[in-house]
Amino acid sequence: MSQLSSAIVAGVGPVRGLGAALASCFAEKGLHVFIVGRSEDKLEKVAQHIEQRGGSATPVVADITVDEDVRRLFEMVRSRGDAIDIAAYNVDSNIPAPFLETDTKTFAVLWRQNCLGAFLFAKQTIGIMQAQQHGTLFFTGATASLRARPPFTAFASAKAALRALAQGLAREFSPQGIHVVHTIIDGVIAGDRARSQFPEYVKAKGEEGLLQPDAIAQTYWTIHQQHPSTWTHELDLRPFKEPF
Amino acid sequence: MSQLSSAIVAGVGPVRGLGAALASCFAEKGLHVFIVGRSEDKLEKVAQHIEQRGGSATPVVADITVDEDVRRLFEMVRSRGDAIDIAAYNVDSNIPAPFLETDTKTFAVLWRQNCLGAFLFAKQTIGIMQAQQHGTLFFTGATASLRARPPFTAFASAKAALRALAQGLAREFSPQGIHVVHTIIDGVIAGDRARSQFPEYVKAKGEEGLLQPDAIAQTYWTIHQQHPSTWTHELDLRPFKEPF
Amino acid sequence: MSQLSSAIVAGVGPVRGLGAALASCFAEKGLHVFIVGRSEDKLEKVAQHIEQRGGSATPVVADITVDEDVRRLFEMVRSRGDAIDIAAYNVDSNIPAPFLETDTKTFAVLWRQNCLGAFLFAKQTIGIMQAQQHGTLFFTGATASLRARPPFTAFASAKAALRALAQGLAREFSPQGIHVVHTIIDGVIAGDRARSQFPEYVKAKGEEGLLQPDAIAQTYWTIHQQHPSTWTHELDLRPFKEPF
Amino acid sequence: MSQLSSAIVAGVGPVRGLGAALASCFAEKGLHVFIVGRSEDKLEKVAQHIEQRGGSATPVVADITVDEDVRRLFEMVRSRGDAIDIAAYNVDSNIPAPFLETDTKTFAVLWRQNCLGAFLFAKQTIGIMQAQQHGTLFFTGATASLRARPPFTAFASAKAALRALAQGLAREFSPQGIHVVHTIIDGVIAGDRARSQFPEYVKAKGEEGLLQPDAIAQTYWTIHQQHPSTWTHELDLRPFKEPF
Repeated sequence: MSQLSSAIVAGVGPVRGLGAALASCFAEKGLHVFIVGRSEDKLEKVAQHIEQRGGSATPVVADITVDEDVRRLFEMVRSRGDAIDIAAYNVDSNIPAPFLETDTKTFAVLWRQNCLGAFLFAKQTIGIMQAQQHGTLFFTGATASLRARPPFTAFASAKAALRALAQGLAREFSPQGIHVVHTIIDGVIAGDRARSQFPEYVKAKGEEGLLQPDAIAQTYWTIHQQHPSTWTHELDLRPFKEPF
Repeated sequence: MSQLSSAIVAGVGPVRGLGAALASCFAEKGLHVFIVGRSEDKLEKVAQHIEQRGGSATPVVADITVDEDVRRLFEMVRSRGDAIDIAAYNVDSNIPAPFLETDTKTFAVLWRQNCLGAFLFAKQTIGIMQAQQHGTLFFTGATASLRARPPFTAFASAKAALRALAQGLAREFSPQGIHVVHTIIDGVIAGDRARSQFPEYVKAKGEEGLLQPDAIAQTYWTIHQQHPSTWTHELDLRPFKEPF
Repeated sequence: MSQLSSAIVAGVGPVRGLGAALASCFAEKGLHVFIVGRSEDKLEKVAQHIEQRGGSATPVVADITVDEDVRRLFEMVRSRGDAIDIAAYNVDSNIPAPFLETDTKTFAVLWRQNCLGAFLFAKQTIGIMQAQQHGTLFFTGATASLRARPPFTAFASAKAALRALAQGLAREFSPQGIHVVHTIIDGVIAGDRARSQFPEYVKAKGEEGLLQPDAIAQTYWTIHQQHPSTWTHELDLRPFKEPF
Repeated sequence: MSQLSSAIVAGVGPVRGLGAALASCFAEKGLHVFIVGRSEDKLEKVAQHIEQRGGSATPVVADITVDEDVRRLFEMVRSRGDAIDIAAYNVDSNIPAPFLETDTKTFAVLWRQNCLGAFLFAKQTIGIMQAQQHGTLFFTGATASLRARPPFTAFASAKAALRALAQGLAREFSPQGIHVVHTIIDGVIAGDRARSQFPEYVKAKGEEGLLQPDAIAQTYWTIHQQHPSTWTHELDLRPFKEPF
């Protein structure tokens, strides 16, 4: 009998958000999903949302930038014993500020959340996928992954660090059957986060000017489905109306 | 009653090749396909291949770098009256040589085939898609689109010109509903062309080291299916074993 | 007795322009300069300007995109018998237009002037520099060399083709002692061309917002002076006020 | 009477190294130099070297990744009261390892030294240069700033973070008269560090295959001399023989 399959999504927040959409999409395709985030409340709602649609989810409250939490998460993952078909590092932490108003702590926190957490997550994930000889490892990037502009310099520095990490991993582990993907989300996601953090910006873009989380998730899924002869390592995703 | 749909694939050669695979894939999804190339014989075989699988194809012998041929092609396209859902410029012309052995004619021919033809093709295609307010326009790029290395300098120059063309078109026409995509095929395609032109190289890569045309076509199709809130403009495609 | 030295600057127009500034700078450093352009009148004025400052210049009226003209130019260069320390391809031809209003001829002309001429110029130059085992070959690029935006798509396609050409040449010929440099002029040059073609744009930038031709020439000279252990292949140049 | 001028070079190690060469070059041009590093012994030797050649140097032992040390350094700088014409962040910390053998501490240390230190250094430097309305701020990058390859993934992640930081600073502060420069050292520097860490690699390259620190310093100086109408933000530097 064939092994059951799971996905892990780190960086799950509100039900209307990219983390939740990825988890829901993977669950709908028949994978059990570990959903990882810092808010127990939000994770519970996402788990409910998934289960109401017939999926199966394990919420894991964890700070993905802390070694111990990551170890605990992966103990849970390993104890379930599924193959890990997909792991998505979807943490996106942004605190815009003019450079001289960016304090050391903020600069470090952005790096820890956007990049160090990805390092910890990748270490564990790759260990598992190497043994399996398959698996897709996603990292969610942003416009700033490619260009640094004020007031996003600290964010861009962290996202550029993440992009290089993803690229190095792709070069090291693709030949071992691990599909490493870096996405560049170039625009604003139509989720609760943008609506609460930048309400006026969201309004100015209009509904057509925002990335739909389910549509992003659909692209992640099709990239996961790619034949190993034809793997994509990096792709951009933006609303048709978005200037770039 | 809704309008029927067609695709156009320029740069169709042998049945075992990317052009044919794209056309076959689109035909299988229910689109009529115009297949464009310079060899009547090859086009006939591809058309037969498609029709044997229940698809429908119109072979058009044309030199896509010649204004008149392009006009004639699009008269045929327009006279059929279908919507043009997909147009793929898949011409890939490469003549490796040390720089000092590259003559002016070769340098110009590579540009004409890799870039000027794309310009002519895009002019006609965009006219149609603008009126429709939808459509996906693909340009097939290569490793050399991003980096120029001898003995591929002339090829790289032409492919870089194509990539910039695609990028400018994406910026100008995405807001009008036209999805412009540039793919970077980073490796050798498992087709008749590579097998005849670089047999030893193909052998060295091994079957697992080559891009499968059907797998590439599958990715083109999923990119075409993207929701307009989440369009990819550029993505790379390479065998999992390919160093990069 | 050591051989005398010359420089060649292709793309020389008005006295207040980059071509003239490069030629004047090189002449001031003691090189004889061949100045190449299409307007005899402008070349004469630049030659006078150089000679009045104690330099020595040979004006050569030529269309650098025409094989025959290029051959004639280099016959003159060879007949003088100097070492060619510097050759600069400084032709910059831009015709902005929306894509659908760009005709085939314009698209081809921009490629011929920005890229094909560079190919012809490089073929001859590299032949000479290879024999000498030294020399610096400059190509003048633009903002559009890196990004294609309407209404500059055709220009960007040509400049991207030029950039790839320069990169391929650097990879092929640096190990033979030829220093190949691609500059990215990111902004408007304070010269007669911009003042006549885009007077309002120039006014809006203000004098401080424009690149000074003599300052650009100074950078070319210092890059030419680099020790072979430490060669720059690509650098950007922009006014301190220029957004990027 | 005009204010005296200083330069600050962070990341100064052995006399035969890039930090020392930068400091020596700036001292030779007449600037007082603050030289910053972790080894008192090495700093003393560099200071002696500079003073023997008629220059003037203040060695400052500091860990540039520690807030307190950075504050102390800049108190010394401010108390001298000179204008700060140049500040160079030249720290380069590299620990190659396969990804799965890279521990969290190493990953964090590389980021702290290559990027966090640059953040702290830039905060102080920009404060001073903003008040002066002039100054050049250099960041020394590497091949890995642009591409991540095993076993340099952690290093590349840190250097990519640095590059984005530099780019954001250039965009934010160039219009205020601060020239921000990111150099890409693409190759091995002919210094004591490479000779002791990678002796065989250095031998294989041959003396001609290494970057000479004095030649790099000379380029930094000429970039510092650029007229504000014509500033370079990024340039690569490599030995003529280096493949790229």
